[in-house]
Amino acid sequence: MRTTEEILARAVAAKARLGALDTEAKNRALLAMADALVAHKQPILAANAEDLTAAEGKISVVMLDRLRLTEARIEGMAEGIREVAALPDPVGETLMRTERPNGLVIERRSSPMGVIAIIYESRPNVTSDAAALCLKAGSVCVLRGGKEAHRSAAAIVDALREGLAQAGIDPELIQLVEDTSRASAQALMHAEGQIDLLIPRGGAGLIRACVQEATVPCIQTGTGICHVYVDASADLDMALRIVENAKTSRPSVCNAEEVLLVHSAVAERFLPRLRETLTDARAAAGKPPVELRLDPRAAAIIPGTPAGPADFDTEFLDYILAVAVVDSVEEAIAHIDTHSTHHSDAIVTADPAAAERFCREVDSAAVYVNASTRFTDGGEFGLGCEMGISTQKLHARGPMGLRELCTWKTLVTGNGQIR
Amino acid sequence: MRTTEEILARAVAAKARLGALDTEAKNRALLAMADALVAHKQPILAANAEDLTAAEGKISVVMLDRLRLTEARIEGMAEGIREVAALPDPVGETLMRTERPNGLVIERRSSPMGVIAIIYESRPNVTSDAAALCLKAGSVCVLRGGKEAHRSAAAIVDALREGLAQAGIDPELIQLVEDTSRASAQALMHAEGQIDLLIPRGGAGLIRACVQEATVPCIQTGTGICHVYVDASADLDMALRIVENAKTSRPSVCNAEEVLLVHSAVAERFLPRLRETLTDARAAAGKPPVELRLDPRAAAIIPGTPAGPADFDTEFLDYILAVAVVDSVEEAIAHIDTHSTHHSDAIVTADPAAAERFCREVDSAAVYVNASTRFTDGGEFGLGCEMGISTQKLHARGPMGLRELCTWKTLVTGNGQIR
Repeated sequence: MRTTEEILARAVAAKARLGALDTEAKNRALLAMADALVAHKQPILAANAEDLTAAEGKISVVMLDRLRLTEARIEGMAEGIREVAALPDPVGETLMRTERPNGLVIERRSSPMGVIAIIYESRPNVTSDAAALCLKAGSVCVLRGGKEAHRSAAAIVDALREGLAQAGIDPELIQLVEDTSRASAQALMHAEGQIDLLIPRGGAGLIRACVQEATVPCIQTGTGICHVYVDASADLDMALRIVENAKTSRPSVCNAEEVLLVHSAVAERFLPRLRETLTDARAAAGKPPVELRLDPRAAAIIPGTPAGPADFDTEFLDYILAVAVVDSVEEAIAHIDTHSTHHSDAIVTADPAAAERFCREVDSAAVYVNASTRFTDGGEFGLGCEMGISTQKLHARGPMGLRELCTWKTLVTGNGQIR
Repeated sequence: MRTTEEILARAVAAKARLGALDTEAKNRALLAMADALVAHKQPILAANAEDLTAAEGKISVVMLDRLRLTEARIEGMAEGIREVAALPDPVGETLMRTERPNGLVIERRSSPMGVIAIIYESRPNVTSDAAALCLKAGSVCVLRGGKEAHRSAAAIVDALREGLAQAGIDPELIQLVEDTSRASAQALMHAEGQIDLLIPRGGAGLIRACVQEATVPCIQTGTGICHVYVDASADLDMALRIVENAKTSRPSVCNAEEVLLVHSAVAERFLPRLRETLTDARAAAGKPPVELRLDPRAAAIIPGTPAGPADFDTEFLDYILAVAVVDSVEEAIAHIDTHSTHHSDAIVTADPAAAERFCREVDSAAVYVNASTRFTDGGEFGLGCEMGISTQKLHARGPMGLRELCTWKTLVTGNGQIR
């Protein structure tokens, strides 16, 4: 097994050879990576079968399903790489340009980070997604997946590297950490001067560890306690559609709704319809009903579980919704300010002043007016791809696309200017 | 003395009242702050005199001079605040806008960080500069200056807060940490959820401590081991002017040159002129001569101190220049890649291919062609101001202006869209 230090040294060495990669070479490399992935279907599936056998009984059924690859999933991964090839090159874009009175031309130009490390868990598709996005962004990637998926990840990386070699590109641009113990994650968190950006993609514990421990630049991704506030002026049919979609279309993801706030002026009309739609109608239709955890004012209107002290601060990722009644948009904003993870929060309203105030004062990565929070996603936002959703304010906020995987440098051109 | 925890709590509480500050209110506040600074000249000078008396004999003459305020310096600080008032508002700018096929309008809009903390050392003007920049960027500031300057900083903050009050703006938007022990700096580094951005401005030790310890988002500023490479094709008169300016115009700052690389094809012509200009002519004119620390190839051409092993990795901040001879632009780039702090590096050349290669491959915040590295500065780059120079790649790189003190949020406006 190669040590993590050795892999980091290889990544840094490979960085020096990135300079020669223009848009055409990167896209050629990406298409070759996609083809190689499909060509290597069999060894990838075989490695995945070994991972699945080893993991059975040790991880949950949901996690096992995330780990499982099929021919269709591998084809989907290859298609994802081809889509990255089709995106515009984020490197070399002029972000600002000024000519100074002294004749200096000053140009801020997007440029690669250098080495990007990604620590992730058991989904094998992250391996190919992350490798493709980093390459397009002009950076070397250092991938460190979870141990349950390691055989799958190694087979995928073998394929991707073979694709690079076939395209005449240095395979060392994609590095997979071989040690999957906690020590390797820590080595990445402390690889100052070697890693330019570390992105943890996974559960709250992993992200917390990176924020606490990392001395390399790190982007915090993920947790979402998302709110929908139904204003006094809301179209209640629209509100019901949005709440149902935000809560139930995919409860396990970070942009799903966890908390509903309802203005007291409409609570008596809205909450019984909410209960009917989310609980009774779903149960009757054989869908998982949503458990409503109600604050005292909501509980005075409809039946449900009384909300406990933690229910307004929990990312349920499940068919559970905390519900509270508020008396104004101000009170809704104050509740969100206190309890939100500032990922995605929505207002449903027909009042432009309330919408404007909500947009101005809610300090979240994505603030919605009359739409479901489920749209917080690189693809849905038109970025064409996504490397996680940043919940920090530095560098990237919300879905991270290719541009957020780049830095810039300033080119200053003169003819002998001195200061 | 108020505790740092109490000051942080006040800063967070004040943040909620920022929403009401539009451009006009911010500019009115800034002008009132400038006027109040001038009106408070006497108490500020009296406090500064106490600081100076207490510091005498304990800090260097250079540091004492940095600490010293005069009427003219206070007027300069007020003028600096007025200049910030005149700059465009960085908040509320539309950075990206897209209308999706489903009708959602998605707009990325610049928005305030929230609470920005600055840890700095003995220059009192940083107190007013930082307060003004944070206010214009829509954020509350938490200032933590050095203990030598604490009386001066407190008097300046009193004036600024009185200016805010006179303009009808909450004085709590400017917070000064009263404890100047190491404990308060550490409290700021760990104030997760309270501080949105921490900027250390000071020596390498302070910056290192922040990078190592901070769990709040932090921007690394400063150290500059800057290179000038004189190419085979360089106009040697221009090269000499640039090298002299980059080295001697202000040796104590981070954008000053520390290392000179000379192509071997011109070394025999260039180095004797360099020595004459930087050493003999300066000594004859009564200016401090530059000590040249020469690699063996340079030492074979001109007299000077033999370069020791650390000389190509030292930020001298003094009249000292390390000099090496290289055989190609590739070798110069490789040297810079290994030894630069990636702050500002320059090539002097008449060859467009060499310039282009240098710009593409040198991975520094500012890359110069035919100009002095001394221009790396917010004012010189046309940003109108500067809150330090970032040497990291995340969020801000190079001089940080008002835009780099902001984050963004994404506003999503629909009419009932669900996913």
